[in-house]
Amino acid sequence: MKKRPYRNGEIWDFEAAMMSSSVNHHKQQQYQEQKVILGLDGGTSSTVCVCIAFIDNDSNNRRFEMMNDGPSPDRPPSILARAVAGCSNHNSVGEIAARETLERVMAEALYKSGLTRAAVLAVCLAVSGVDHPTDQYRITSWLKQIFSSNVKLFVQNDSVAALASGTMGKLHGCVLIAGTGTIAYGYTEDGREARAAGAGPVLGDWGSGYGISAQALTAVVRAHDGRGPQTALTDCILNVLDLSSPDELIGWTYEDPSWARIARLFSYVVSCAEAGDEVANNILLDAVQELASSVKAVVKRLGLSGENGRDNFPLVMVGGVLEGNKRWDIGKEVINCITKDFPGVFPIHPKVEPAVGAALLAWNFLIRQSRKDDALEID
Amino acid sequence: MKKRPYRNGEIWDFEAAMMSSSVNHHKQQQYQEQKVILGLDGGTSSTVCVCIAFIDNDSNNRRFEMMNDGPSPDRPPSILARAVAGCSNHNSVGEIAARETLERVMAEALYKSGLTRAAVLAVCLAVSGVDHPTDQYRITSWLKQIFSSNVKLFVQNDSVAALASGTMGKLHGCVLIAGTGTIAYGYTEDGREARAAGAGPVLGDWGSGYGISAQALTAVVRAHDGRGPQTALTDCILNVLDLSSPDELIGWTYEDPSWARIARLFSYVVSCAEAGDEVANNILLDAVQELASSVKAVVKRLGLSGENGRDNFPLVMVGGVLEGNKRWDIGKEVINCITKDFPGVFPIHPKVEPAVGAALLAWNFLIRQSRKDDALEID
Repeated sequence: MKKRPYRNGEIWDFEAAMMSSSVNHHKQQQYQEQKVILGLDGGTSSTVCVCIAFIDNDSNNRRFEMMNDGPSPDRPPSILARAVAGCSNHNSVGEIAARETLERVMAEALYKSGLTRAAVLAVCLAVSGVDHPTDQYRITSWLKQIFSSNVKLFVQNDSVAALASGTMGKLHGCVLIAGTGTIAYGYTEDGREARAAGAGPVLGDWGSGYGISAQALTAVVRAHDGRGPQTALTDCILNVLDLSSPDELIGWTYEDPSWARIARLFSYVVSCAEAGDEVANNILLDAVQELASSVKAVVKRLGLSGENGRDNFPLVMVGGVLEGNKRWDIGKEVINCITKDFPGVFPIHPKVEPAVGAALLAWNFLIRQSRKDDALEID
Repeated sequence: MKKRPYRNGEIWDFEAAMMSSSVNHHKQQQYQEQKVILGLDGGTSSTVCVCIAFIDNDSNNRRFEMMNDGPSPDRPPSILARAVAGCSNHNSVGEIAARETLERVMAEALYKSGLTRAAVLAVCLAVSGVDHPTDQYRITSWLKQIFSSNVKLFVQNDSVAALASGTMGKLHGCVLIAGTGTIAYGYTEDGREARAAGAGPVLGDWGSGYGISAQALTAVVRAHDGRGPQTALTDCILNVLDLSSPDELIGWTYEDPSWARIARLFSYVVSCAEAGDEVANNILLDAVQELASSVKAVVKRLGLSGENGRDNFPLVMVGGVLEGNKRWDIGKEVINCITKDFPGVFPIHPKVEPAVGAALLAWNFLIRQSRKDDALEID
């Protein structure tokens, strides 16, 4: 049972077995100097934990030079193991279930790496639903019960991991997430942060996959009852949902109001716009304005573009709505729109997943800590 | 137990007791010739049944002249009793519970009138959730098990009763309902009908109390995160909801997503607009356009304004959003907007409740039936 080592026992029982096992003796030798970082990305649908090798290139005894040898877009970190579990948003599944999921997924990643908690230098847990310092404090306290006191612990909102997945761990710039929902988050190097949107559909996240799809459904109803122009969305959506009349859309939405179910219509809206439908096209143009305005609000509040408004800053773009594999490229249009106000915007489509971004955040925190320690020693 | 005569027994047990009771003997004599119509308005929050006296002014033996002596805005019908029960929308409470509620509320209205089913000439049941002929057929079949075969039965959507409450039973014109939700319904004298909106918030009922309130909440979030202009709605709504920051609105909406809860903020949006807030003012102007467009779509599809577009037609206006007791009078602005396209629009604010409208519908059906019978006799 390699995948689930902890069946009827305690989550961390495998460590004792690993330490005493002769089979693992060679491996133990091999990895006894191995130090790792755990990065976790906990969303509402799944939780991913990666275990990455922390390479100490401390050749000239000045630790902060590690930074130059650390991961970069061209040199991604070495991932020893990856484990996946279910939802760990405490708002959705409750505190106890969320904790157990997080603890098990970390144990699994370590077990797969052939390591124990003794190898862990730092843990960065980026979970959705962490919005206040009280959330951070509560989760950090609980992590302290699992790891020894010298392990560095970082607890963040999942948007932070998304940003770091694009900047390779550097906390600076803006991230725009647009999947089922949408949110823009920004961070400055001196630790200030701001967000825009991300408040759910009732509170106007209109650039999201849900928002775009809901407006498409509305357009079908309006075309049907005479309030709006005819649109190719009607035949397309009725066909996809296997309905015979727009009247039946009312029942369809009442049946199951989940946002994700409605958001799945997003790609059909893009197809209709690509095929030249004016109504679908206008919905996407509106979405572009909405998404760009979230980013612009964050950039403005944080002064990310500098005093002259022309400084460079990274914009990490994450989520299905922003993927550039379509002719009608929403992400590209959003960038065009932002560039008009902030020509220094530098778009990044991350090459690593958010869990790796979380691990890289911890990596950078460690480096910064090491710089500070060295600075103190020099003083 | 005057209010609930049917405690542990059958719903209609009171009739046998009424027939045999000596106390009721005089009353029986008095009402033995009394004929009545039951009108029911069944919504998602409550069900109302009125029992109205049908006066047969058949002095010159030509029954259709009753019409001239029937109810009018100046001469409302005589209401013998009124009974109220809970929800009777079969989509909300299920078929069995909906039926029991409707049967009990009819029994109560008759009991209060001191009458039995023998006095009933016609029943008009106007319930929300009746959208297809199959719904009408199912409910009519069940009513046939309660009443004798000579009782005329009419089953309609609740919007029809709202229209009839303004036209005193005449099925012609348009009705605009704007409370928590919104819908426009129209009917022509030759039996055609059309509707617009009424599809729920996901499908864009933006002129409703819910729509206006959701846009106000969105405006507060946008002002807070920098996407939109500052607005007096922020202080007003945070104060009403006892919250200290717009961030807390996210939790507030997730807590209980019921439309009615959000729609209750409507009157505060009006207050802010009246006090000169530009953002609140624009939300109401948008709502006016939305509501007017629903009516215009229905009028256009049915040709209610005639070939020259200038014919008169009634527009019955129902619901909290359209009430004219405010300085910022949404109903009046909606009429102004419709008048530009259809100068023959004639607004009506009903003086009787929808259950009475339902009863008057049945009254008019009876009259028409009587005309036809007479015509056949003459032929």
